[in-house]
Amino acid sequence: MAQRKKAVIAGAGLVGALWSVMLAKRGYEVDVYERRPDFRQAGYIGGRSINLALSERGWKAVEIAGIREKIEKVALPMPGRMMHGVDGELTFQPYGEAGQAIYSVSRGGLNVELVNIAEEFENVRFHFNQACKGVDLDNSAIRFEDTQTGARYTIESDLIFGTDGAFSAIRSSMQRLPRFNYSQHYIEHGYKELSIPANEDGTHRMHTNALHIWPRGQFMLIALPNLDGSFTCTLFLPFEGEESFENLTNERQVMAFFKKYFPDVIPLMPTLVEDFFENPTPPLVTIRCSPWNYGSKILLIGDASHAIVPFFGQGMNAGFEDCTILDSLMDKYDEDWPAIIEEFNANRIEDANAIADLALANFIEMRDKVADPRFLLWKKIEKHLHERFPKEFQSVYSMVSFSHVPYSQALAEVAEHERLFDRMLAIPNLEENWKGPEVEAVFREWLAERQ
Amino acid sequence: MAQRKKAVIAGAGLVGALWSVMLAKRGYEVDVYERRPDFRQAGYIGGRSINLALSERGWKAVEIAGIREKIEKVALPMPGRMMHGVDGELTFQPYGEAGQAIYSVSRGGLNVELVNIAEEFENVRFHFNQACKGVDLDNSAIRFEDTQTGARYTIESDLIFGTDGAFSAIRSSMQRLPRFNYSQHYIEHGYKELSIPANEDGTHRMHTNALHIWPRGQFMLIALPNLDGSFTCTLFLPFEGEESFENLTNERQVMAFFKKYFPDVIPLMPTLVEDFFENPTPPLVTIRCSPWNYGSKILLIGDASHAIVPFFGQGMNAGFEDCTILDSLMDKYDEDWPAIIEEFNANRIEDANAIADLALANFIEMRDKVADPRFLLWKKIEKHLHERFPKEFQSVYSMVSFSHVPYSQALAEVAEHERLFDRMLAIPNLEENWKGPEVEAVFREWLAERQ
Repeated sequence: MAQRKKAVIAGAGLVGALWSVMLAKRGYEVDVYERRPDFRQAGYIGGRSINLALSERGWKAVEIAGIREKIEKVALPMPGRMMHGVDGELTFQPYGEAGQAIYSVSRGGLNVELVNIAEEFENVRFHFNQACKGVDLDNSAIRFEDTQTGARYTIESDLIFGTDGAFSAIRSSMQRLPRFNYSQHYIEHGYKELSIPANEDGTHRMHTNALHIWPRGQFMLIALPNLDGSFTCTLFLPFEGEESFENLTNERQVMAFFKKYFPDVIPLMPTLVEDFFENPTPPLVTIRCSPWNYGSKILLIGDASHAIVPFFGQGMNAGFEDCTILDSLMDKYDEDWPAIIEEFNANRIEDANAIADLALANFIEMRDKVADPRFLLWKKIEKHLHERFPKEFQSVYSMVSFSHVPYSQALAEVAEHERLFDRMLAIPNLEENWKGPEVEAVFREWLAERQ
Repeated sequence: MAQRKKAVIAGAGLVGALWSVMLAKRGYEVDVYERRPDFRQAGYIGGRSINLALSERGWKAVEIAGIREKIEKVALPMPGRMMHGVDGELTFQPYGEAGQAIYSVSRGGLNVELVNIAEEFENVRFHFNQACKGVDLDNSAIRFEDTQTGARYTIESDLIFGTDGAFSAIRSSMQRLPRFNYSQHYIEHGYKELSIPANEDGTHRMHTNALHIWPRGQFMLIALPNLDGSFTCTLFLPFEGEESFENLTNERQVMAFFKKYFPDVIPLMPTLVEDFFENPTPPLVTIRCSPWNYGSKILLIGDASHAIVPFFGQGMNAGFEDCTILDSLMDKYDEDWPAIIEEFNANRIEDANAIADLALANFIEMRDKVADPRFLLWKKIEKHLHERFPKEFQSVYSMVSFSHVPYSQALAEVAEHERLFDRMLAIPNLEENWKGPEVEAVFREWLAERQ
């Protein structure tokens, strides 16, 4: 069994930096190349990053990297959603059990922490301002350009990891191969980052411990709390159509749109119009491909192989779980990379496709269904069933956010749970009887059928 | 309304050459650039091209181009499939009504005809050995490299058509745009071109007027007749697995495989082993994208925007239909290109996706179902129903091959026809009663429900 101890990682984003730590801990000589300048000096470029929600899968990887305590200090728990009605009415809806939460973290802050912890290993080196220009696949040779000097050079390595994100240069090289399956699919919506600053005393202007959401059917606004008292807000809106970015081209239109749909945030956003016209309007893409490897030397992980829309808060968590799984496969196969890569490729792609589907479906849930009384009733029943039958029943949301159940298994539960709820709807006065014996009877029947 | 009278076409394949004729007839100055050498001198590269089946949609375009008579002389009618059992038993199954057929044509021969007819127009110029290297989209500037001199240059044009095939360089430039949806998906099968030569007297060694097919479940062999008495044969086989290309690596294995599955063709293929190891094993891809245009100046047509698998014989026909539709839109909008491109893009993509789906489904039909008695029974019923109710009932195969019904409409009929046949199966002794009153009653009921 080969003991290769050198690795090249293309991309020092969240997944690349975390992965360098995991490899470093096992004694690999790791070189990480990154197109951008060192964001510890240059600062992280804002206006394009939806705040991140770290959940169970992400925490596990953070723990393996040995920075759980550090991140806990900068992560704000969001135990549920705070829905904002057009009339300003607030409704809180917990995500899971008491004590469970997803955590708002700053993408930039987390990335800096990960690079710092990696650099504490003497066997990890970061090379910033180095743009990946593709791979010579058969020679495992990766091409870079120094963005400051323009110098071009090639690095050979027996182990190359492509963590260079949704627009991966390494994947681009693989895409020209016969039998490489690939898709990039954009939704009709773009997004705009906006901001709610802190109060003068540094406190939050809205309830701190929640993911705030203004569901409006075809579009929505969300807000995640930051440590400094501010909120990072994101408006998700179609590019075209009646209510769309193309129809918000001047101050008057933007203010009228916010007055109509989000009147309660206007006093909280003093720079609303400036932010709206200064920040870009990026699109939202889902990327799928297969295989993720080329031979036993080149492997894509994270967004490079499975970029998803942000509506389940699982993009980073899924990328981190890639690392956790690879870490456990290194144990299982004693660092025999051909075996690790084969198993990872054979089993992980289905899960990546599943979370891509779940994330697309959750957009409809967030922007539309959360305001539906039937949906809220089902959420109450889910909670009740889980309390009564903790081993037999878990909501799909909980499976994704608070467990390590494979994503594909969570996706398969969606239809089953819908079938269960459809039957519940036949119970008379379900609104009053949602804790009653009929609900339990229907549940037990459903459960029995599945065994 | 703008009267732009210049156009650049990238790609002198079947669709590019045909399209140049249609534009030439309307007085456009047309420059066609092609990566390959002039195939009228260099000869067409074989070993990679499945013979083509020209059907109704293709004929219409050929007629508009004014070469129907020429093509009729070199096209061999195939009014049906000739199924070859493992035991050598032959079963003929007509594709449509008496007098209807699809036509075997040589890709190279047809391409040469189209280029020749185009060059008869003084306003068309072909530039061979010129490889498209991409487009500067915002300046409508297309980059070429002369493959003989290595010289690079840029052409600007207010109207650029990308007919550069499944691996289109123009599409590659568009693929980097935000909101450009794209997928390339390979099936598990590759193909191998083989050949049955003519008898010494120039006659065919099998029945001339049929598409010969050896359906074997997971794989199949087909043969299409050529004018010179030979057949062009294609073996479609998985790359991996028990019966697969990876397990056919020497003469003994190839001969054993053919003896087991295609014993009747061995005496007809004197160069079987040589052909098998000399010819490449290309994969089979489906390509979908949207939009097909960039603004009102750049448009993809044919395989460049919708490459499909060959199992419905519709790849060329669909590309030719693109030209026919654009030609009719030039009339409708009096050559107002922004309007033409907008309507083409809005309506044609759905049809391209539909024929992609139909072609994938037809592979299963060809390799597997055609040997199933139930399928053959349904084909008889389809024929009977069409004879009895010519206006009310047409098989999906006929809609695709012998009509101009939009592909998306044909695809929508698939599920409806399956529902109809499922009900027919409840009729006692359907094998004897397939022309009986119960069949008609079930049909009328089905028809009534749909109105």
